[in-house]
Amino acid sequence: MNGNTFGSVFQVTTFGESHGPALGAVVCGVPAGLKIDESFIQRELDRRRPGSGIPGATARRESDHLKILSGVLNGVAIGTPVALVIENSDQHSSDYDELKECFRPGHADFTYQRKYGLRDWRGGGRASGRETAARVAAGALAKLLLREYRIEVAAGVESIGGAKCGSIDFSAPCSNELNALDPEALPAMRAEIAAAAAALDSVGGVVRCRATGVPAGLGEPVFDKLDALIAHAVVSIGAVKGIEFGAGFGAAALRGSENNDPITPEGFATNRAGGVLGGISDGDALEFRAAVKPTPSIGIAQQTVDLKGNAKDLTVSGRHDVCIVPRVVPVIEAMTSLTLADLLLIQRTRRI
Amino acid sequence: MNGNTFGSVFQVTTFGESHGPALGAVVCGVPAGLKIDESFIQRELDRRRPGSGIPGATARRESDHLKILSGVLNGVAIGTPVALVIENSDQHSSDYDELKECFRPGHADFTYQRKYGLRDWRGGGRASGRETAARVAAGALAKLLLREYRIEVAAGVESIGGAKCGSIDFSAPCSNELNALDPEALPAMRAEIAAAAAALDSVGGVVRCRATGVPAGLGEPVFDKLDALIAHAVVSIGAVKGIEFGAGFGAAALRGSENNDPITPEGFATNRAGGVLGGISDGDALEFRAAVKPTPSIGIAQQTVDLKGNAKDLTVSGRHDVCIVPRVVPVIEAMTSLTLADLLLIQRTRRI
Amino acid sequence: MNGNTFGSVFQVTTFGESHGPALGAVVCGVPAGLKIDESFIQRELDRRRPGSGIPGATARRESDHLKILSGVLNGVAIGTPVALVIENSDQHSSDYDELKECFRPGHADFTYQRKYGLRDWRGGGRASGRETAARVAAGALAKLLLREYRIEVAAGVESIGGAKCGSIDFSAPCSNELNALDPEALPAMRAEIAAAAAALDSVGGVVRCRATGVPAGLGEPVFDKLDALIAHAVVSIGAVKGIEFGAGFGAAALRGSENNDPITPEGFATNRAGGVLGGISDGDALEFRAAVKPTPSIGIAQQTVDLKGNAKDLTVSGRHDVCIVPRVVPVIEAMTSLTLADLLLIQRTRRI
Amino acid sequence: MNGNTFGSVFQVTTFGESHGPALGAVVCGVPAGLKIDESFIQRELDRRRPGSGIPGATARRESDHLKILSGVLNGVAIGTPVALVIENSDQHSSDYDELKECFRPGHADFTYQRKYGLRDWRGGGRASGRETAARVAAGALAKLLLREYRIEVAAGVESIGGAKCGSIDFSAPCSNELNALDPEALPAMRAEIAAAAAALDSVGGVVRCRATGVPAGLGEPVFDKLDALIAHAVVSIGAVKGIEFGAGFGAAALRGSENNDPITPEGFATNRAGGVLGGISDGDALEFRAAVKPTPSIGIAQQTVDLKGNAKDLTVSGRHDVCIVPRVVPVIEAMTSLTLADLLLIQRTRRI
Repeated sequence: MNGNTFGSVFQVTTFGESHGPALGAVVCGVPAGLKIDESFIQRELDRRRPGSGIPGATARRESDHLKILSGVLNGVAIGTPVALVIENSDQHSSDYDELKECFRPGHADFTYQRKYGLRDWRGGGRASGRETAARVAAGALAKLLLREYRIEVAAGVESIGGAKCGSIDFSAPCSNELNALDPEALPAMRAEIAAAAAALDSVGGVVRCRATGVPAGLGEPVFDKLDALIAHAVVSIGAVKGIEFGAGFGAAALRGSENNDPITPEGFATNRAGGVLGGISDGDALEFRAAVKPTPSIGIAQQTVDLKGNAKDLTVSGRHDVCIVPRVVPVIEAMTSLTLADLLLIQRTRRI
Repeated sequence: MNGNTFGSVFQVTTFGESHGPALGAVVCGVPAGLKIDESFIQRELDRRRPGSGIPGATARRESDHLKILSGVLNGVAIGTPVALVIENSDQHSSDYDELKECFRPGHADFTYQRKYGLRDWRGGGRASGRETAARVAAGALAKLLLREYRIEVAAGVESIGGAKCGSIDFSAPCSNELNALDPEALPAMRAEIAAAAAALDSVGGVVRCRATGVPAGLGEPVFDKLDALIAHAVVSIGAVKGIEFGAGFGAAALRGSENNDPITPEGFATNRAGGVLGGISDGDALEFRAAVKPTPSIGIAQQTVDLKGNAKDLTVSGRHDVCIVPRVVPVIEAMTSLTLADLLLIQRTRRI
Repeated sequence: MNGNTFGSVFQVTTFGESHGPALGAVVCGVPAGLKIDESFIQRELDRRRPGSGIPGATARRESDHLKILSGVLNGVAIGTPVALVIENSDQHSSDYDELKECFRPGHADFTYQRKYGLRDWRGGGRASGRETAARVAAGALAKLLLREYRIEVAAGVESIGGAKCGSIDFSAPCSNELNALDPEALPAMRAEIAAAAAALDSVGGVVRCRATGVPAGLGEPVFDKLDALIAHAVVSIGAVKGIEFGAGFGAAALRGSENNDPITPEGFATNRAGGVLGGISDGDALEFRAAVKPTPSIGIAQQTVDLKGNAKDLTVSGRHDVCIVPRVVPVIEAMTSLTLADLLLIQRTRRI
Repeated sequence: MNGNTFGSVFQVTTFGESHGPALGAVVCGVPAGLKIDESFIQRELDRRRPGSGIPGATARRESDHLKILSGVLNGVAIGTPVALVIENSDQHSSDYDELKECFRPGHADFTYQRKYGLRDWRGGGRASGRETAARVAAGALAKLLLREYRIEVAAGVESIGGAKCGSIDFSAPCSNELNALDPEALPAMRAEIAAAAAALDSVGGVVRCRATGVPAGLGEPVFDKLDALIAHAVVSIGAVKGIEFGAGFGAAALRGSENNDPITPEGFATNRAGGVLGGISDGDALEFRAAVKPTPSIGIAQQTVDLKGNAKDLTVSGRHDVCIVPRVVPVIEAMTSLTLADLLLIQRTRRI
């Protein structure tokens, strides 16, 4: 209930502000005996790092070097909490001095002030996208567990602004800087970002995610359905404004005979359910799409108010991305992996 | 983590199967001194009841009579758990005998069997939509708390199949049997349902929800954002396959300058955020849309398998609705109210 | 955190006041496939019932008839919540009218009023010992699970007032009405109770508990040690004022060489640790003692105050036990069983 | 349920092994606006540090220098998690090489191996008393919150082996190296420790704790009673084997008329309840005693077995204390403070 913890058995608690000394995650419930490949966790963090050739990417350069403080001995989890720390090194807090006294539209500045009566104005504080580095580090631990069960979680960019993938290939994202699911859509996507950058503006998009190898039976009835937990996990990522499973919003316009997946001796004939029936995984691939809003930080002047409520025009300085969508991809994979790892362990307790 | 509990301070645990003796909810954390209007809870239950004039509605007739077993003395909450019980009276379990040995497409039959190694095949067991009566009863308690703060939660049907509301009026649903947000869309909506019924099929739709009077500051940073918790709450309703906040999936195609809500001394100039910034309520109305799939129970023969994995053609008998969308409306209100009531109480602990 | 829930996987939530319509428990996490012997649960409830031949026992007569509302089909747990309800039938609420306006010393009357600003004065409300019926019903479910693992939990009375057992035999309690661990101590124990009754007073005692067959490895490091959770569980019983494990307070006066249990190839040579090392079960019997205070309801006039803070002399009427110690025995077994059942299931998740 | 987290609103999660890179705590729910006096936290840590003039104290020398990684800006809590890290600097892991293959009697070596199938043998790993540094750091934050409400928590040593305090003065502990509650008992206590040290043995004792200024109304009914949570908190400290509140085990031999605290217009006439009635604070001082076992590490040869189950004689080397009791004092204060801080915040949600 404190907002900084996710999961129940495989459980992560994160901490850290954008411009504080460090970010981190404490992961409890990692099963003893799990091999911890530290270089894999670092590679996952590197996938989330800014500035890897994307036009209009933030100029902040963080090494995101991972330190493991506990829970691992000789490369193996010992059952105690795995504490992961990532130091902040490239803060330019003074860039944000102007924001101390006013609120950026589309950001959490206004709401943190109203919630707490004060806030860390430097780079968004805890509400910064930088917070997701801790999620990715913890999610990498979850992926290591899932791999023992041959469960693979992959995500990619389906659209940026009006540029959409014509086909979907989950092996494509790792080979292009936009994490796009269709390499043929890359020119149009790059053009969307370049046009937004030229206009001192930003642009949103859609990410699609698929988990394969998920055994039937994961998810808990009623409130903690697999799709409910994935929705919780994914919508908790700052920029995500919507999620849909399988046929999703499209299902609302279908008839039951069109939407039901026929069951055959060889498995489901289709997967309009997105791999979830009654909130429990059905053995087919888990599939969902998430809407990512355009970065609220833009170079165009916007109407806002200051701490005293006076009207003010604001042009956001500081360093930020024109398009955050490609960087959300590893974060969505991380949240999906954390959810599945937790449900996988819980399922061990469900039968006599 | 057991799936039957939602919330942390204002917290509900539900129980009950469709064809067992009773359903119920135990609501903990109801603040002492809250006036408990029992007839209001009953009215909310009545809104969810089947068969109120909707074409193709299930023939099951339940009185859904509420009993309060604890936690209330002389019409006032005393701080202890409020236990609510609703007896099942109109079960026709023998209708489901055929389903003991085979799986209905689109239902939880298959996944419960895989999760638990056995299942209650009678009317869907715990996965039945009947489970939502307990949510509505608990949600009514939450609404009573919210009203003390002048927070109102209202939902309505935006579309059924291809029939969509032209305008949105949250006072409209209470005056039509489909809970539609635009009375002018009623003829088209009724026609969609009638056509599906005639085809022995079913049809889905979209529900829109709005909460007004929500103070700024509700929601917890990072994992338990207001929108993440609402997504969890709403997607946990059986038939819901997607959710979006404010501009939602539409935001993915916008520029930042189009999507950010300008802040003025009088408040936000627009509400594309849906009332949530950085996962915390901003004082504007909370707004979201949910996709509801068509009822999986249809009278058309479908491909499926039996317990031994052999192919089989199934025509679902039993009693069920052709269109579940209007009945989801009070359930979405209930889940939204439970989430807000919990966050409202938690917020009391956040400042020194 | 709401006080009405115990455990995490095998998890019970209870509800009910002494003079309300009913008491009950909702038990989540009962593994699917567990055989539910309803008559065993009823027998456990009968062990806790008042008035079974103890001198000075309360005159309240409750049948404590168990109803199962959900979670069980054909005598087998189906994985969904098991809701247990026990109706109240023999309330004499008017006996308590005098207490509406004043506080009984040693009772929760004063503190509930200060906590909630109001209270259910009838028979102690939720703070009544009657609440423990729900614990015993839930604990019986836990015992059914433990028996699948050949874990047996047994408790008995070690002393009442100054009358102490000379020897300890955990098979003795079931064959005497005081649940004493040594039948030879019965005359002295009965005399203690009779003397207190004659003096319109009450008397306390000590209960000892032992769980055998507990496998090594149960309990979680640091905060959720097995002994910490048992202490939580047992001290949460109203009348319990202390607990000690193995050598307990005696260990405080020992040297390490006297207190350590030598380890041999055949197991531990002694069990001064009470079966717990570093908070984790060591495979030896779990052993602890609990101090039970004398019933605070006595027939002797006592100093107290009324709601307005004015001094007043009070002689407690209503129905109550002169010695509650024998009736605490099945409650301590229930809380111990609930703790062990939960840790047993959790341990399934701790290794890769 | 993962054992590394305590509390629900004011909630701490700790991590770290004795010979790993660092220990730490992440404290969630610290109310925004609370002044964080970093030097106070450091002083609390210094009180727990080894080697402050106690005969037979461990030779390990740790600076226990505190670093705050998040949650504090300009000396004020901002509502986000406060992460506290303490680096390990004086590990001599090679001292423990012999223990890799065998189990120390009275330690968690055996049980961790059985729980996890492997263990960190270096200095006790996570089961080391060093883990309590993280508790003390988090507890210091709780004390800062309690001080805003004028709640003071103090503990001290009541006995060591057979040497007992004749009187109790909670201001005494801060002025003597044994944290004794009666300076006149110091010579006898020192003699107990010296004698044990000379015999290559160790010795236990009793700690008494009192919290003053606790408002009436803290604690939750039924399972999360104030005393149940304190019992959980205090018994979770490695060496604690028993706890009693107020008259405690003594109450078991009393009559009700002797044990009940009379209520007068000026407050309770006595405090045999230890400040708790029905599990809720009554406004009087919270009082309890905890039994601390002798350090299991001793220089005398003991019977044990190796990993293969073969008998072996073991003389424990490594660095350890002859008497741990004085060092438990700040840890008990910390756990008590964490419990009270949590309940204090929760109580804000209990009335309309």
